[in-house]
Amino acid sequence: MLDPIPADSVGLVSPRTQHFDTPLALDCGVVLDGYDICFETYGTLNEAQDNAVLVCHALTGDHHAAGFHSENDRKPGWWDNCIGPGKALDTDRFFVVCPNNLGGCGGSTGPLAINPQTNKRYGPDFPIVTVRDWVESQARLADVLGIESWAAVMGGSLGGMQVLQWAIDYPARIRNALVIAAAPRLSTQNIAFNEIARQAIRSDPNFRDGHYYEHDVVPEHGLKLARMVGHITYLSDDVLHTRFGRELSGSKIGFGFGVEFEIESYLRHQGEAFVGRFDANTYLLMTRSLDYFDPAQKFDGDLTAALRECQARFLVVSFTSDWRFSPTRSREIVRALLDCDHDVSYVDIESELGHDSFLLPIPQYHKILQTYFNRIEIGT
Amino acid sequence: MLDPIPADSVGLVSPRTQHFDTPLALDCGVVLDGYDICFETYGTLNEAQDNAVLVCHALTGDHHAAGFHSENDRKPGWWDNCIGPGKALDTDRFFVVCPNNLGGCGGSTGPLAINPQTNKRYGPDFPIVTVRDWVESQARLADVLGIESWAAVMGGSLGGMQVLQWAIDYPARIRNALVIAAAPRLSTQNIAFNEIARQAIRSDPNFRDGHYYEHDVVPEHGLKLARMVGHITYLSDDVLHTRFGRELSGSKIGFGFGVEFEIESYLRHQGEAFVGRFDANTYLLMTRSLDYFDPAQKFDGDLTAALRECQARFLVVSFTSDWRFSPTRSREIVRALLDCDHDVSYVDIESELGHDSFLLPIPQYHKILQTYFNRIEIGT
Repeated sequence: MLDPIPADSVGLVSPRTQHFDTPLALDCGVVLDGYDICFETYGTLNEAQDNAVLVCHALTGDHHAAGFHSENDRKPGWWDNCIGPGKALDTDRFFVVCPNNLGGCGGSTGPLAINPQTNKRYGPDFPIVTVRDWVESQARLADVLGIESWAAVMGGSLGGMQVLQWAIDYPARIRNALVIAAAPRLSTQNIAFNEIARQAIRSDPNFRDGHYYEHDVVPEHGLKLARMVGHITYLSDDVLHTRFGRELSGSKIGFGFGVEFEIESYLRHQGEAFVGRFDANTYLLMTRSLDYFDPAQKFDGDLTAALRECQARFLVVSFTSDWRFSPTRSREIVRALLDCDHDVSYVDIESELGHDSFLLPIPQYHKILQTYFNRIEIGT
Repeated sequence: MLDPIPADSVGLVSPRTQHFDTPLALDCGVVLDGYDICFETYGTLNEAQDNAVLVCHALTGDHHAAGFHSENDRKPGWWDNCIGPGKALDTDRFFVVCPNNLGGCGGSTGPLAINPQTNKRYGPDFPIVTVRDWVESQARLADVLGIESWAAVMGGSLGGMQVLQWAIDYPARIRNALVIAAAPRLSTQNIAFNEIARQAIRSDPNFRDGHYYEHDVVPEHGLKLARMVGHITYLSDDVLHTRFGRELSGSKIGFGFGVEFEIESYLRHQGEAFVGRFDANTYLLMTRSLDYFDPAQKFDGDLTAALRECQARFLVVSFTSDWRFSPTRSREIVRALLDCDHDVSYVDIESELGHDSFLLPIPQYHKILQTYFNRIEIGT
């Protein structure tokens, strides 16, 4: 018999889809005539309509951040440990909104969707969307939901970049910005890893220039490799050592190229599981979005200038062992905010779990989020 | 007109090939009935036969460590900046021997060689050789050359691992051990990166289970990806930032998947150049050799016990920004040597160039090597 759904869960949830008819002019120059945004909500919007929190997902996330999709569903949303009644982001107080990003593969319009102009899937023809495009589409969703301003916008990694962009693009519509395990732009090494992931996908013969759907194949080797590369950068050297060390899968080394070390088995498994749940064209465009993100660019690289007009209060969080977006990168954001005299709190959480820490229920981390949210004043 | 060959070069050199008839029992259980070792030498063996230095190459190196192969050859050997008359390893004093490792693709017997039992290339049937196997084959080469004991054995990265193994397996035949940018065994993260490289090669349809020669193809996409992954780990985040930053190849971003950032162009170029010069089956077995190397293993993980019987004096060198084999890993070696009361000098060279530093003419580094070699007493 299955365990009942825990009491501190948001419980059973269903995604909703909102269609937008107003054309959206993307950064790349393409205009999307219409599009869908798939999203979930948890908690209730109060009468004052001032208790809404937007949760932005990262590279491979989606709209299903908390709760379960059915009684038999044993896998809750990706940030379930953080969102729920009495949890760090308390759904008894806040109304939480989590959309799947435009270009994603979770239900919002993206490469998997049917292009009305061709009646075929968009595939590689879906335009590359930017973090700014996402913020724009999320602002329109807020309009539909009657949310004039967010009590908070919150996200980790690429999600944290969306939070920064929100604070820049809509200073009056975001009262608190929680920027977690993020960076003001990718480093050269970050771009290099993304490029390897893309090359892996694009050189897979099954990729077929992105038109794999029509051939009923999936560039699984490429997508698997891309995930394996990504995965190494999500975990610290230390945690890999602690979890897997040099442990062998069998009793001794086999002098071959099958799985010999436990870490190989783990990586292959991670890669294979990913192939079943993610779309290769979406992975390509999401990594490009990461590469392009650089709000300081139009201020000649001056991040302080880019953040000058922000009005939100900020909480910036980094994790000591994160080498994808290291604490140094978070401090760049903090320094720029301080230079603007903005209200910013910063904490570097001691964790050996690497970049993935932001998804994990680390007590000190969740306590800090909870304390921060508790101090946000909302109406009734 | 071409520049003349510089005066501090060893000049024109030719590789030699030594055939061995005595069967070699490998760690994996396979017995090689006969094999060739291709090698180069620089300088002259003195009458006392005590001035020979063995140079061990790393993952993608070969026997061509110094000098030029022809008057028109503008690319000297891979460690030419370090080996030559008056250089750090002074060929006016020392007789330098550099073999291509067994299993390599530079001329020694390996996957590219003809298997006498089938009259076809060994390909994937060439057995996985270990660092111990290499040391054994190098010891036999020393016998042939009349070298009873090496004045020094020297190598960086995987080369440094061979030096350690020499000091353990033939304590009486190595007087000085120069272990540069190495580690006593791979970390879990190191193995993980190797596994990604292997998966990239093995999942390339042109790989054909390693029998690509017979099909007249090369798993070029896989080999290119493998090199790109490796390359990121050879360079520090800082040097990537300094050299490439977020610079674009064109004047603005193109919202596509072609080369947009300079780092992408660089990585692709590195990958493509590698395909032309290296064999995929060799890459596979060399990375496995790296994975397996762990001299402490049969001493229950006790490196001190593994190094107890060494008689050589040691110079251990690391580089501050090396994150593939970080200074911490070199210090593990130093600590174990000190615990044995062995004679060890250690230096951590300030360099922002990452793991690749060991191949580069960093003045402080070469000065230290030179000073160390100057102190080695040799006869006439």
